[in-house]
Amino acid sequence: MIPAQDDTMAQTVRMAVFGQRDFAAGFFDDLAAIGTDPAGGITRDTYGPGENRGHEVMARAAEASGLGLSVDAAGNTYARWTAADDLRTVMMGSHLDSVPRGGNFDGAAGALAGLVAIRALRALDARPRINLCAMGIRAEESVWFQTSYVGSRAALGTLPVETYDTARRIDTGRTLADHMAACGCDVEALRNGARPLDPATLEAYIELHIEQAPSLVEEGRSIGICTGIPGNFRYPDAKIVGRHGHVGTPHRFRHDAAIAGAEIATEMEKLWTAREAEGTPLAVTFGRFHTDAAFHGLTTVPGLFHFSIDVRAYDEKTLAEIEQEFLRIVARAEANHSVRVELGSRKSAPVGPVDPDLRGGLVAAARALGTGFIDLGSPASHDAAAFAAAGVPMAMLFIRNENGSHNPLEAMEIDDFLEGCAVLTEFLYRKYCR
Amino acid sequence: MIPAQDDTMAQTVRMAVFGQRDFAAGFFDDLAAIGTDPAGGITRDTYGPGENRGHEVMARAAEASGLGLSVDAAGNTYARWTAADDLRTVMMGSHLDSVPRGGNFDGAAGALAGLVAIRALRALDARPRINLCAMGIRAEESVWFQTSYVGSRAALGTLPVETYDTARRIDTGRTLADHMAACGCDVEALRNGARPLDPATLEAYIELHIEQAPSLVEEGRSIGICTGIPGNFRYPDAKIVGRHGHVGTPHRFRHDAAIAGAEIATEMEKLWTAREAEGTPLAVTFGRFHTDAAFHGLTTVPGLFHFSIDVRAYDEKTLAEIEQEFLRIVARAEANHSVRVELGSRKSAPVGPVDPDLRGGLVAAARALGTGFIDLGSPASHDAAAFAAAGVPMAMLFIRNENGSHNPLEAMEIDDFLEGCAVLTEFLYRKYCR
Repeated sequence: MIPAQDDTMAQTVRMAVFGQRDFAAGFFDDLAAIGTDPAGGITRDTYGPGENRGHEVMARAAEASGLGLSVDAAGNTYARWTAADDLRTVMMGSHLDSVPRGGNFDGAAGALAGLVAIRALRALDARPRINLCAMGIRAEESVWFQTSYVGSRAALGTLPVETYDTARRIDTGRTLADHMAACGCDVEALRNGARPLDPATLEAYIELHIEQAPSLVEEGRSIGICTGIPGNFRYPDAKIVGRHGHVGTPHRFRHDAAIAGAEIATEMEKLWTAREAEGTPLAVTFGRFHTDAAFHGLTTVPGLFHFSIDVRAYDEKTLAEIEQEFLRIVARAEANHSVRVELGSRKSAPVGPVDPDLRGGLVAAARALGTGFIDLGSPASHDAAAFAAAGVPMAMLFIRNENGSHNPLEAMEIDDFLEGCAVLTEFLYRKYCR
Repeated sequence: MIPAQDDTMAQTVRMAVFGQRDFAAGFFDDLAAIGTDPAGGITRDTYGPGENRGHEVMARAAEASGLGLSVDAAGNTYARWTAADDLRTVMMGSHLDSVPRGGNFDGAAGALAGLVAIRALRALDARPRINLCAMGIRAEESVWFQTSYVGSRAALGTLPVETYDTARRIDTGRTLADHMAACGCDVEALRNGARPLDPATLEAYIELHIEQAPSLVEEGRSIGICTGIPGNFRYPDAKIVGRHGHVGTPHRFRHDAAIAGAEIATEMEKLWTAREAEGTPLAVTFGRFHTDAAFHGLTTVPGLFHFSIDVRAYDEKTLAEIEQEFLRIVARAEANHSVRVELGSRKSAPVGPVDPDLRGGLVAAARALGTGFIDLGSPASHDAAAFAAAGVPMAMLFIRNENGSHNPLEAMEIDDFLEGCAVLTEFLYRKYCR
């Protein structure tokens, strides 16, 4: 049983958080105004003008909140409420970039949540025995540089240094180093081993994020408390090389790259379905899946096909098995359709475990507030996984969201967002302020 | 047994044809020079600058050969050798446009063949009891306006008049009428029922064309004599509408348009394989097959997918059966993946029968020459089908060609081309000059 005084204080915490409604709505409005694509959706391009303006909004909001503002060598923005320089820090953050023509909330909600929690605690005149920091992170959306967690890994010193020169933005073709320099980052310092965030100084990393599937909508709950972040393997730039031919070319003479691609995707879909039926959660996505616009046509057998694949699962063994199966499926498609598959670069991210104590603390906070929640494995990757990999205890909160994410129709209710912020704030209050 | 005097004369005909080698090579060189794309391949765009320049080459070659030159209201070029105005005409032609980044020979070889045959007969001082005409045809490649045989059907008065306004070039978006007017055509006359080619005045239509598969390479023969031209049905602009979603979206919440496309293509491929095993020749091609470049990305479940499909077979019953099966496969994919398929416009072309007498004449000519040939169903559509549909007796010759067509690697040997011209010329000589 939760003591009665907890419940009373919890409702006070909730009121303080919901008092931040105008501040939160203004933050989202400011973001939506600058990143709106005339063709629909919102584009805050990674290490480009869109993301830069997102960080300007974060900086203005931090200054308006009277918090200490800083920007690190990788361009991440920090809004700090420092209790004492020798105390460790609870970092609360997420990213401010978006996919092309995405929605307004994916990422941004988590950067704002840290600010809201700090403002609510200050409104309550709470005195945390820990430093608190809201972090606006750079370059989480791997669609741009085809690599994950660039901003958080650069800050934590875990981004392989060659990435600065090998990763190129998919639309501009320019290197990560080039884009970062244009955004005022100190790439030279990072190359030379600068580590803006020492994991040993971090008490915890907590990320609030919109849910990217409608599980919470389905369950009628506003909050999901994360049970784990999937690892993944990816081939962002795979290519199938066949031979262009006339539309009437008989079957046995074809080298049809598109049909080979269709076979690979269909076989992977079957594999996913079979694994899921056995109770193993995973996800397989062919995000880019296309004939070559420079060559394709109604009357040409496609000789070139491009695809990206992302496979994610909650344990490393499953990932390894699926990748072996994928390579067998690719080899069969090559043989069946007389084509050559060039898989190109391979990327991967480890499975991200949630810290059980943090998770327990968030569950206790939700119960004290009477907030309905469900346990939820994250279907997506998040910066939280980079913090976990660096040894920082990590937890995540998901907020109900209609229509998925990475699209213009993301629809998070501000009440659900504030409910998530209340759980975060109540946790901080219970653990560090009482 | 073929009488001995035939063989002697046939060898004389062959010598006259092979005497046109420099003329023929020059014609191909002139075409290759003007239509070369710096990115590889040759682009002679339909009712655009590329095709126009092809017709200029044809006109210069006709004038250099001392033939009567004319251009009809649809922009087709005619090089006539008129024996008497009241005689009917043997038309020999093919098209001068190409697919984007195609090869030099698809089409052009057939327009040139008519010129070569006439020049050889004139060199032999033959006196045909028929008018002969080489025809450079417009707009055969349906990739541009998503419709077949525009130039030949406009000339024969069989192109539906609405096509001038409804067909739009896929790259420019401008109407067929607009493109034709820009090329100096008299669209108004065509709309008002002008028929530049009266089928009743045509003795025959004979088209020489490179083979678009390597059957002749495989068989070690230079010539194929056509047994039939397939009909087709096509959906040039089909679209699958799902919903863009985050890469981590669980299976049950996805509306994955690309996976639905992959299923449709894979099922059609299975259907083709099964029919082929039963001995029914057909071909299924998904020429354009792609996620939407404006939205797709490594971390986005594709909510939009585009494809074109072309299905061709040698009898109408097979075509009808396959189309019913296709529609069932589409409906299943819609249900399986929670997407909507918008098939868009449907096009079709009837099966094109070869005239048995003409075919017999070409076979006799090949035998007289000692030319190795095989019987060959055309895998592709050709203007010849439009002539057949208009009631003109039709036949076709195929020339050995490596690497297929509709691509930059088309490789027809000039000796094989001249061998085909020799069969055509020997046929004309035997039938109309002896």
